Amino acid sequence: MFDEILKNVALRHPVVHCITNYVTVNDCANVLLACGASPIMADDEAEAEEITSICSGLTINIGTLNSRTLVSMAKAGAMSNSLDHPVILDPVGAGASSFRTSSALDLIEKVKFSVIRGNISEIKTISSGCGRTRGVDADENDILSGGNIIDAAALAKEVSLRLNLVTVITGESDIITDGKKVYAVKNGHKMMSKVTGTGCMLSALTTAFCAANSTCLLDASAAAAAVMGLCGELAYKKVQISGGGTSSFRTALIDEISLMDEDKLNRGIKIEVLC
Amino acid sequence: MFDEILKNVALRHPVVHCITNYVTVNDCANVLLACGASPIMADDEAEAEEITSICSGLTINIGTLNSRTLVSMAKAGAMSNSLDHPVILDPVGAGASSFRTSSALDLIEKVKFSVIRGNISEIKTISSGCGRTRGVDADENDILSGGNIIDAAALAKEVSLRLNLVTVITGESDIITDGKKVYAVKNGHKMMSKVTGTGCMLSALTTAFCAANSTCLLDASAAAAAVMGLCGELAYKKVQISGGGTSSFRTALIDEISLMDEDKLNRGIKIEVLC
Amino acid sequence: MFDEILKNVALRHPVVHCITNYVTVNDCANVLLACGASPIMADDEAEAEEITSICSGLTINIGTLNSRTLVSMAKAGAMSNSLDHPVILDPVGAGASSFRTSSALDLIEKVKFSVIRGNISEIKTISSGCGRTRGVDADENDILSGGNIIDAAALAKEVSLRLNLVTVITGESDIITDGKKVYAVKNGHKMMSKVTGTGCMLSALTTAFCAANSTCLLDASAAAAAVMGLCGELAYKKVQISGGGTSSFRTALIDEISLMDEDKLNRGIKIEVLC
Repeated sequence: MFDEILKNVALRHPVVHCITNYVTVNDCANVLLACGASPIMADDEAEAEEITSICSGLTINIGTLNSRTLVSMAKAGAMSNSLDHPVILDPVGAGASSFRTSSALDLIEKVKFSVIRGNISEIKTISSGCGRTRGVDADENDILSGGNIIDAAALAKEVSLRLNLVTVITGESDIITDGKKVYAVKNGHKMMSKVTGTGCMLSALTTAFCAANSTCLLDASAAAAAVMGLCGELAYKKVQISGGGTSSFRTALIDEISLMDEDKLNRGIKIEVLC
Repeated sequence: MFDEILKNVALRHPVVHCITNYVTVNDCANVLLACGASPIMADDEAEAEEITSICSGLTINIGTLNSRTLVSMAKAGAMSNSLDHPVILDPVGAGASSFRTSSALDLIEKVKFSVIRGNISEIKTISSGCGRTRGVDADENDILSGGNIIDAAALAKEVSLRLNLVTVITGESDIITDGKKVYAVKNGHKMMSKVTGTGCMLSALTTAFCAANSTCLLDASAAAAAVMGLCGELAYKKVQISGGGTSSFRTALIDEISLMDEDKLNRGIKIEVLC
Repeated sequence: MFDEILKNVALRHPVVHCITNYVTVNDCANVLLACGASPIMADDEAEAEEITSICSGLTINIGTLNSRTLVSMAKAGAMSNSLDHPVILDPVGAGASSFRTSSALDLIEKVKFSVIRGNISEIKTISSGCGRTRGVDADENDILSGGNIIDAAALAKEVSLRLNLVTVITGESDIITDGKKVYAVKNGHKMMSKVTGTGCMLSALTTAFCAANSTCLLDASAAAAAVMGLCGELAYKKVQISGGGTSSFRTALIDEISLMDEDKLNRGIKIEVLC
């Protein structure tokens, strides 16, 4: 099933509209091209709706939010909703400032999102309406590791049921749920946290996977998380051999996305149904 | 001749003012440094003209256009015109939204461009005043391959004659014309379309080549296209050997620009005079 | 001592707020992660102060300054001052336009900076209130090489004494002074000038080093310059072996920052006390 989802991205090469931060935007564009999709970045109010209307998916990422682009996000989101295209929210740093928290919540009011992807601190903030994040990383007390997967799954389910969407919480394990079924993806490598934008890249990838598989958003989101994590593992093996550091790892990570295929995914995927 | 043009860039190391999109801006800066030029990015109305006045060429790229930078583009363009410096337009996504199309046409009204570089869908939009693009990529019906080079050359000539500038249409082959002479550059590799910004990078490179060779803009534009395409071929050979993916290819592409010399260019250039 | 400073960055992993240009912002984020710090980029007036308040250091970089972010810079700087956190100014291109020069001087009026880092043309502009820069690179007459280290040291001391801060002038040798003691760091490689943003990256790195070593800003700034220069040397060795160009060098440079340790620093550091 997950291999089919991967194949569909390359077959349907969806055009994905990204209104995203200027820190990791180049990596997001390259990840979209690497998986067979096509990116278009357009953040001005004068064209946000029209650009969305020629795409088949929309990513909204608040990493370097400002008052100008916030308007474009809401407009593009509404247009995407009217066309029934998947819209993904990456609430980068929600909890780190009241502006980010309120902007994320405001967007959730105005736009019907298909998927929200964040670290556990960000998703807690979305859930509770307030929060505390260590910058754009998850708070240390929140890190998603063995012990608290069950808590994270409960949190994700609550968010999914209330907002009627797929919630993706990324961490040592990733939790993906539509409020009923819960996947835990065990792929990934801790070096991914030493490169900026691996979360943003996954959000962009998830949008492409959902755009090309719009009838199964839960499975598409899980497949994207598994592909990203598996590519992290393969990239780590490469830099271990070459003796490279974090920048070589970044290059290898995007390389692996472009080299991923159904066989590799089937051999490497580590996914469990938690409930 | 083309080798002389290449040499002049390194000799004269022109400073190039770029008002460009935030997706590929870092690659554009690194490509300019790689070829021996020096980049400066400045998009605020308060300094756009003054920055242009200390440079010897200007790139205007509408990839992430907004109302604020549109004003700066027009001002910088007018200043560059008054100093008789080459000004290059990259109408990224013209045809994808009415805002992009009208902004590109508006800039063409206000600024006397030296070169316009785009894919065939973008140039068709410039030619007809309306169009349809698949995001920022050329429409599939428009892809520039064997069969329609003659049509593309006719289109490019029409644009060049009407606007009195050099038109560069990039695709499987590149067409470069001043309305009279038409070059077809056959260098390049299809992997270039799997990396974001190879078009933007070529526009920046073209600006450097024109700034350092301001008396022969047609040949300078053709040389830039040949260098970019040849570096794509050489980069592909490297990743074939290393087993790398699209991100390694991007690194190798910019590497090759920094390692290009007259001998390599003379050995690898594939250029024809179509008429 | 310098090895202790390096170790403290990894131990304390400071969160660094960057209001910086969109050209090199991704590299700055990756350099911060590579050295063990954590970046957060936030440039909107609505959150600039609040984001600064959860960080332990602030970088202000005017590389793609605009009127909107200038307000955020002043607000974040004032907040950082009130919390006694180190604030670093990178006056990119001061002297290249009156807007940049006056903005840099205006920020210096409003914010008490801990460190200013620039090339010699930029620091001359800060010192004299006017200047002339070749784009964002040092003017050729100003290049910091053997003969004029003494002049540069005198300039740096004057700026430090007048503004009560650490001045870092980077070039073939780097000068670092608090107005009394003057370090000359002889690490570095000329290939660093063929990659965009090595100055911006050093400013970000300096902020992390100062944030993790807030009681010894002079030594922390010198350590950052030495680490950056040494990583440039090690990166050059790597690309010499691999036959890579400027983009491979960029990857290797950030790699080396992520692979730096106290032993390597102790073996490779080239630092002198000039007076």
